[in-house]
Amino acid sequence: MPVLQSKWMEKAFCGARRAAERGEVPIGCVIIAGGEMLAAAGNRVLELKDPTAHAELLAIRAACEKTGNERLSDCDLYVTLEPCPMCAQAISFARIRRVYYAAPDPKGGGVDHGPRIYAQPTCHHRPDVYGGLGEEQSTQLLRDFFAERR
Amino acid sequence: MPVLQSKWMEKAFCGARRAAERGEVPIGCVIIAGGEMLAAAGNRVLELKDPTAHAELLAIRAACEKTGNERLSDCDLYVTLEPCPMCAQAISFARIRRVYYAAPDPKGGGVDHGPRIYAQPTCHHRPDVYGGLGEEQSTQLLRDFFAERR
Repeated sequence: MPVLQSKWMEKAFCGARRAAERGEVPIGCVIIAGGEMLAAAGNRVLELKDPTAHAELLAIRAACEKTGNERLSDCDLYVTLEPCPMCAQAISFARIRRVYYAAPDPKGGGVDHGPRIYAQPTCHHRPDVYGGLGEEQSTQLLRDFFAERR
Repeated sequence: MPVLQSKWMEKAFCGARRAAERGEVPIGCVIIAGGEMLAAAGNRVLELKDPTAHAELLAIRAACEKTGNERLSDCDLYVTLEPCPMCAQAISFARIRRVYYAAPDPKGGGVDHGPRIYAQPTCHHRPDVYGGLGEEQSTQLLRDFFAERR
């Protein structure tokens, strides 16, 4: 994995670890534009009592607020787990250029599993997707989190 | 269409018309629990500069805030257009019981078209879906809106 990708994915993992500390499913996300971090977020479903408060949706909303634009055309998104169908579609609506994810999610993912949102003929914008960039770290974080809860 | 369904769908259409007045794509949504309107919203993508500000997502977030719960298990959702994949998945995450939509959306829908979110084996909660309840009114509203913009 090239240095830059690794750096941003590490930032996404920071968000995931902070989410775990809050008792949330440990998933983190950052959005990058022009070599700068535009937004960072972790999962906050329980804290906000909002089923849509996934890391990616929060990061997209924060990035759009910051830029004053509902499109993030030159932005790249890094997330520690394969986006779910909701987030995958939101990424498409936001016109995000590239998606880097750490671990695949065969049970809940919507990019390379399940509905494969970007493979649908009705999908208008398909980001470039790079998966599996830090699979072990992501899986371990989720495994530890759910093991503690059993 | 039974009287109650018609009443709530009419409320959803009010939200759609108000969205059109704001220059937004005219889609409206209400969430009902125990015969009461828990939340109502229209599309606000442009106003909020937020690509996730679809009527359904805004209504879900408002209803969850009102109830203090990230699950809306006994709630029904009425919307003037077939939900997109993002909203369809959010409806599933929110555990909404029934979805009533006015017009089908072959180009952008995610319930009975495209990825058919609830037909995916990986989908954990499938609401009961009733489509086509007011198709003509919804289609006309959208047609007028886009005709004005041409």
